[in-house]
Amino acid sequence: MKLASLHQGRDGQLIVVSRDLTKAVHAHDIAPTLQFALDNWEQVEPDLQHLYRNLNDGVAHDVFPFNPHGCASPLPRAYQWADGSAYVNHVELVRKARGAAMPESFWTDPLMYQGMSDGFLGPYQDIQAADEAWGIDFEGEIAVITDDIPMGTRTEQLHDHIKLLMLVNDVSLRNLIPNELGKGFGFFQSKPASAFSPVAITPDELNDSWYDFKVHHRLTVHLNGELFGQPHAGTDMTFNFAELVQHIAKSRHVGAGTIIGSGTVSNLDRTSGSCCLAERRMLEAIENGIPVTPFMKFGDTVKIEMFDDDGRSIFGAIEQKVVKYTNVYDKQDLERHKPV
Amino acid sequence: MKLASLHQGRDGQLIVVSRDLTKAVHAHDIAPTLQFALDNWEQVEPDLQHLYRNLNDGVAHDVFPFNPHGCASPLPRAYQWADGSAYVNHVELVRKARGAAMPESFWTDPLMYQGMSDGFLGPYQDIQAADEAWGIDFEGEIAVITDDIPMGTRTEQLHDHIKLLMLVNDVSLRNLIPNELGKGFGFFQSKPASAFSPVAITPDELNDSWYDFKVHHRLTVHLNGELFGQPHAGTDMTFNFAELVQHIAKSRHVGAGTIIGSGTVSNLDRTSGSCCLAERRMLEAIENGIPVTPFMKFGDTVKIEMFDDDGRSIFGAIEQKVVKYTNVYDKQDLERHKPV
Repeated sequence: MKLASLHQGRDGQLIVVSRDLTKAVHAHDIAPTLQFALDNWEQVEPDLQHLYRNLNDGVAHDVFPFNPHGCASPLPRAYQWADGSAYVNHVELVRKARGAAMPESFWTDPLMYQGMSDGFLGPYQDIQAADEAWGIDFEGEIAVITDDIPMGTRTEQLHDHIKLLMLVNDVSLRNLIPNELGKGFGFFQSKPASAFSPVAITPDELNDSWYDFKVHHRLTVHLNGELFGQPHAGTDMTFNFAELVQHIAKSRHVGAGTIIGSGTVSNLDRTSGSCCLAERRMLEAIENGIPVTPFMKFGDTVKIEMFDDDGRSIFGAIEQKVVKYTNVYDKQDLERHKPV
Repeated sequence: MKLASLHQGRDGQLIVVSRDLTKAVHAHDIAPTLQFALDNWEQVEPDLQHLYRNLNDGVAHDVFPFNPHGCASPLPRAYQWADGSAYVNHVELVRKARGAAMPESFWTDPLMYQGMSDGFLGPYQDIQAADEAWGIDFEGEIAVITDDIPMGTRTEQLHDHIKLLMLVNDVSLRNLIPNELGKGFGFFQSKPASAFSPVAITPDELNDSWYDFKVHHRLTVHLNGELFGQPHAGTDMTFNFAELVQHIAKSRHVGAGTIIGSGTVSNLDRTSGSCCLAERRMLEAIENGIPVTPFMKFGDTVKIEMFDDDGRSIFGAIEQKVVKYTNVYDKQDLERHKPV
């Protein structure tokens, strides 16, 4: 099943999208929003699946063309966004680039941080930043959405708590990171709003490409229209999504609609490219002493997508442009002091 | 105005509470939940204020006795919970206890982390923990709730974006912290669900005790019925709530219903006691070489409250007991393997 949220109000309007991403139908008779659906998954899922089958079979009513540009993130805001760093070879590389060894425990104890979830960007919304000097970067990732998971649930008890999958652009402000990590409390200002793919899918949509709690397809990233990377998401993922769920549930109950990210997809085989600028810059630093690829400038675009074995887009694309931001109060001041 | 949420569903049921915390009235004709009220504050606030005046004047209809034990946290779940460490002398003490100097920048650049917000504890709900060895601690804090704040808003542009105030018990698992901070991504498992006071209040309820974006009253903490600390929340608060808001808004828009915490209230005058066990333990370690006060055991209780100059409770009390937790799947296993 494929689900999306049209831009409407704070929580969007839930629609069901056809498997080929060409058609859609409103789901408001079943669930007004995706959060509502997740809060009541057992009750609403059969009806949503029924509508999805009818849509794909061409027998649904009030069908309209699917336009991903009209989409918010599937969850326009969420109660939890926990982002892991499951491709540990990427973490090792980060540290290698600054000459630091990685503790052995990083291979067995997941890295994870809590990200802001009070307002995500839609898949085609601009990335606003006040300053290019912040070091604007993208991170191509995969994320899952869960239902309610009791505290202490372990991987072998996970059953079918993972309900949906999405792609993510975990926007990162690289030059704000060293100061924040130096303070010891983790990321905050350096991780602004993330964007998610137009469509969230149930795991069964992946058929044989979903096993061992990993997605076995390449993640394709384009920067300004040129292929930047297409590492395989099923390769070199040290912690699968079951292990990430176990990590976050250790000391807390996990609420329905929790989003858990994989961290930047990254392969040890560097010929497949990278899913973030920082990784390419680190490879350059290791090879040539200094990074040469710049961070994103105003006007730059990034596109993140995943294709099935027949080349069809699974989630639709995230495609975002970086734009200069001025806050509304400063704008008013500028207006007021404009020479006449 | 004083607002609370009765336990009901995932988001509670909004009620208006009388100034003296004895009476209440349902607000569902105005706003079903507090999140709904915050999402539409400009529209609903006048009606809520009108109902509040009628309740205090004894002319509201369908009034019922206020029972804080029936309350969830004012926001039973939220889209953002950002917790600061605004009483920097506390941070300095933490570091002194482990023999580390504090960087000078900590006096000018706020420490803040993103906490879990997908399910808070009610003010009288038990603190569940699987293991006493986790080092269970409380942290008495003050928190504000904001409306929508545009990215880049600075302290002088803050206007009246702070809508409500609450008390917090920021439950902390001290023995899980060193490993997590060592990894560099901040707290995660070491900060389980927080609890908030039964009642959230508009700043005007504090009269002259709300100025410079600080609350000028003592915060009173009891452990197992004995006074543990009552430091003054208006003293030694290095960063006020306007500065904390500015910090979180630097690179992101802030969504309505965002909760921002002060961090453990702490005074340089140590005779007023502490708002968490860790601080007392650090003082013991500095004085005698080792901490003697243990962390919380199963059965221990903590009570957090704030009184006005006439000794009346402002927010109602947070009062919580620590209990042993076993996850539902393990319980089923235990049942299954019970000797007959």
